Amino acid sequence: MAEKFALIGTGNVAWHLGRVLENAGHLLVHVYDRKLGLAKKFTADYFNASYGDTTDMRSVEATVFIMAISDHAIATLSQQLKLPEGAILCHTSGSTPLSKLGYADTLNRGVFYPLQTFSKGVPVDFTPIPICIEAENQFTLNVLKNLGQSISQEVVEMSGEQRKALHLAAVFACNFTNHMLAISKEILEAKSMSFAWLKPLITETIHKSIQLGPEHAQTGPAIRGDLKTLDQQLKALEGDVDLARIYQYISQHIIDTYSE
Amino acid sequence: MAEKFALIGTGNVAWHLGRVLENAGHLLVHVYDRKLGLAKKFTADYFNASYGDTTDMRSVEATVFIMAISDHAIATLSQQLKLPEGAILCHTSGSTPLSKLGYADTLNRGVFYPLQTFSKGVPVDFTPIPICIEAENQFTLNVLKNLGQSISQEVVEMSGEQRKALHLAAVFACNFTNHMLAISKEILEAKSMSFAWLKPLITETIHKSIQLGPEHAQTGPAIRGDLKTLDQQLKALEGDVDLARIYQYISQHIIDTYSE
Repeated sequence: MAEKFALIGTGNVAWHLGRVLENAGHLLVHVYDRKLGLAKKFTADYFNASYGDTTDMRSVEATVFIMAISDHAIATLSQQLKLPEGAILCHTSGSTPLSKLGYADTLNRGVFYPLQTFSKGVPVDFTPIPICIEAENQFTLNVLKNLGQSISQEVVEMSGEQRKALHLAAVFACNFTNHMLAISKEILEAKSMSFAWLKPLITETIHKSIQLGPEHAQTGPAIRGDLKTLDQQLKALEGDVDLARIYQYISQHIIDTYSE
Repeated sequence: MAEKFALIGTGNVAWHLGRVLENAGHLLVHVYDRKLGLAKKFTADYFNASYGDTTDMRSVEATVFIMAISDHAIATLSQQLKLPEGAILCHTSGSTPLSKLGYADTLNRGVFYPLQTFSKGVPVDFTPIPICIEAENQFTLNVLKNLGQSISQEVVEMSGEQRKALHLAAVFACNFTNHMLAISKEILEAKSMSFAWLKPLITETIHKSIQLGPEHAQTGPAIRGDLKTLDQQLKALEGDVDLARIYQYISQHIIDTYSE
């Protein structure tokens, strides 16, 4: 069923969700931002919708209000909102509990968390992106599920506790993975070498990890129990205690994981 | 120029190099393995070449002898080899110095290190794979460069010190990255969730990291300085000291890197 929806926030996630939901036949009717200029620019540039900076949105004819704002702002702003009776209010955050969505007891609250990293202005295919849904009642669950299924083949209902674990897993799989690449780039550039040389190796590593499962794709000195290379490499890092510590603890964790 | 070459070792790297060098017009004339059965099977299955388990290969009509064996075996085996006069002996290891190749002073020694992770029996396009070359004299350098350029567009001459740093960078970029994925899979499965859900996020993360450079693609609670989420996630890991420590040190390193 096509829904009329409003966006609260005008950042990256708001832009992507607005775009993909409109493409799926839903109608963006209103955009809120606490900075009026941002709401104005956002609608002028991309959407045919009203806009405003007032938290009283009782006159907005939307059934779903999607908050796509910083995690830390969710609790405060949601308490200030006034929405039409029966409206659904959801946030899009992996790490924020459903219960942070204010205290208005007439509200249908939910979570609509797309598990992806978005780049500004680069359209993305939502079909394979998991949409993680949580809702405080069946009505809200149904609406958010339908909304999700209209843009993705992977709509998953999960508890707040699961979503938290998913977010933590994503920190390891993405944020930390990216930082491992950043460290490797620094090591290369310190010796006048190019990070680009690692591209085929990185691509193949990730491909194998996803195909076989990471626990079947581990290679390197730690899993080989090659203590000589581990010692050598640790020594090469001894000028940088923090990096040496990271090297040591990850290597030890690999050894422990596979000797169990 | 087409070379006649011999392979010392019958593992993964030997198979890949043998295959791609033959496809480029070079001729594999002999295969050595300390286990005769392995050398026999390797040639019978894949190559039209003689084979043997004798380290005296003075009668083998090859100009280049490529060692593709475990790092720790390189020094010992290379000291036992007898090769035709003027032959080139190279190893294929990222972490082993050129000088580990025995002591025979008539030898032209070198390193021919393809920077990739190879899967058994899965042919791979060598064109973008860096081949890292080191050699003890100009003649050897020229031959190994030509050999490299016949299979790859990215032949790089580098010192042993650089190759060591490259190998260390690869441990961070690939071995550690894969382990981050293994950890994330464990976190998910402990809460009955599927690692497959992370696929689009992982793929996009790596894509962005390579496109923009990892230092411009970092996201997550640490770079945002989101101490609340960091504390929460650290607490969620408190049952596992080793994992908590890894989480803490990587997060701290991200904070330090970007606040400098």
